[in-house]
Amino acid sequence: MNEERGRMMAAEIAEQPAALRRILDRAAPEIRATARRIAERRPRFVLLTARGTSDNAALYAKYLLEIRAGLPCGLSSMSTTTAYGARQDLTDVLVITVSQSGGSPDLVASTQAAREAGAITLSVTNNPDSPLAAVTEHHIDILAGPERALPATKTYTSSLLALYLLVEGLRGGDGADAQALPELAARILARREEVRTLAARYRFAQRMVLTSRGYGYPTAKEAALKLMETSYIPALSYSGADLLHGPLAMVDNVSPVIAVVAAGRGGEALQPVLDRLRARGADLFVVGPQAQVREASAGFVLPVDGLPEELQPILEILPLQMLAYEITLARGQDPDAPRALAKVTETR
Amino acid sequence: MNEERGRMMAAEIAEQPAALRRILDRAAPEIRATARRIAERRPRFVLLTARGTSDNAALYAKYLLEIRAGLPCGLSSMSTTTAYGARQDLTDVLVITVSQSGGSPDLVASTQAAREAGAITLSVTNNPDSPLAAVTEHHIDILAGPERALPATKTYTSSLLALYLLVEGLRGGDGADAQALPELAARILARREEVRTLAARYRFAQRMVLTSRGYGYPTAKEAALKLMETSYIPALSYSGADLLHGPLAMVDNVSPVIAVVAAGRGGEALQPVLDRLRARGADLFVVGPQAQVREASAGFVLPVDGLPEELQPILEILPLQMLAYEITLARGQDPDAPRALAKVTETR
Repeated sequence: MNEERGRMMAAEIAEQPAALRRILDRAAPEIRATARRIAERRPRFVLLTARGTSDNAALYAKYLLEIRAGLPCGLSSMSTTTAYGARQDLTDVLVITVSQSGGSPDLVASTQAAREAGAITLSVTNNPDSPLAAVTEHHIDILAGPERALPATKTYTSSLLALYLLVEGLRGGDGADAQALPELAARILARREEVRTLAARYRFAQRMVLTSRGYGYPTAKEAALKLMETSYIPALSYSGADLLHGPLAMVDNVSPVIAVVAAGRGGEALQPVLDRLRARGADLFVVGPQAQVREASAGFVLPVDGLPEELQPILEILPLQMLAYEITLARGQDPDAPRALAKVTETR
Repeated sequence: MNEERGRMMAAEIAEQPAALRRILDRAAPEIRATARRIAERRPRFVLLTARGTSDNAALYAKYLLEIRAGLPCGLSSMSTTTAYGARQDLTDVLVITVSQSGGSPDLVASTQAAREAGAITLSVTNNPDSPLAAVTEHHIDILAGPERALPATKTYTSSLLALYLLVEGLRGGDGADAQALPELAARILARREEVRTLAARYRFAQRMVLTSRGYGYPTAKEAALKLMETSYIPALSYSGADLLHGPLAMVDNVSPVIAVVAAGRGGEALQPVLDRLRARGADLFVVGPQAQVREASAGFVLPVDGLPEELQPILEILPLQMLAYEITLARGQDPDAPRALAKVTETR
């Protein structure tokens, strides 16, 4: 029985290079066309709506939209519409709803309300026949294929890439840099033994802190969620700046820290936080460039081969998915079927 | 020495009824005038900028602005401006920066950049002579007086009330309902012995989960931050809906849950989450109405006397500040001076 544990999650992690390739080959032209139609409407603000793993994908899109498309963004607080019946004028507002299943009733209701309030609506899902896709004017299918393990993996990286191509389309780019992703992803996923060895360090961890800054921050949040869903380790995630505003008091040698350090400005902005953590003697695990890993307690050198910083999140999460998976197996639990988690969450 | 521990934090918690009264008596007219000037500019979208405790106050304002003023909102990702140099057209956008000290360099830089990008800028601080107040077109002084304990308490509730009066002003209201707050706050703060007894339950807690929905969600986040800053207990906060999307796997009888249950729609929307937690046998502590506390493992009955739901967060946080304080004392630590925390955090 034991070798059956985590079989589905392992298979879906392994599918990611192919899933990324499929988006580049088959979804990209339609995403570009969708972006062009949306750009013609000249949206002035963007609201992103999502929950769970998709909320971390939405946060990645927020960074892209603000930095690369120059559009101010917000993340929706869904209950303002669904519990309080808030009504807003959403003319010129692009509402992007991200959901693997496209089935959560509160996402559908809130997106429907946004459309009635005048928003340009776009859904990004893994199911073009979903109720969510049906209520939006525009839809992007991430083509990830059925996801059976409860912790989402391939739908996360597929959503990131689809959102990247969308934002590149909004600014008139072709997203050619993304062509390098499938090969880089495959190189990372081949290092399972290395991750298994690293996972042993966390066999008895009682809690973890994840941090990053800029584009890497959604990765820190998603890695924390993955760790909690699979291994039940309480994992707190903070932007590096927020970590210094309080929760740092909680970090000491009993709270291991995982830092996602981009090769780029986000990594540079995180440097003072890394220095502070080292000065406190924190157990620091780095996912990032070799020089950063060398100065940490442990780490995973991420091959980026000159990939622009905004594409690195699609790779950064891979060793952390593997880490969550291996820690969970090491603890004798089943990564495929966390207790209490349902695939389509029926929040209203 | 021991009796000196936490003296400053206790004094500042106790000052809150007077601080609320001061805003109602002395700041309200000017806040109303500021709101009127801003309303004349007809903002279409609001971006809120803050960190730490002030970020939780900003989140409260986001709910108010969306629900009561009908304005779509976002929380700024500051690094998009300060690390990546993003430039956006912020015409018609109201940018509200909330900061106790008004001194954090990245807040000042990001607010300055927003003003140059055409935004209507407003700062809400406890220091009208701060660099932040100097770079904004409009300023609200929360008049809380010097805050000496490192964990912010009175500046949090004062910021909430100032933001409430601002949003009421934007919609042409007078905020008269808030007059009941100082007296209700004093009644809550008089129950220190009750909170001390409740705190004993958490003497050996290794982690905590806080949850709420709607207006109470910022309270859950702020209570988690307070617990972490003072007692170093890893405290995770989730909106009730997000809790069902994954982290619930982590909740069992070793992760006590604190739920903030508003008397109103937010509390109703949280009901399925409370039912689910009870079904899992979670140790559930409720801050809220008597009927909800009665069905929980423990709790604090919040006197609201018909106060509208949107004002309840100004009261909900009080027993949770006291709880963080008492747990910290019970653990032999000093609530006034958490390790690693500085009053003005110099993130850039």
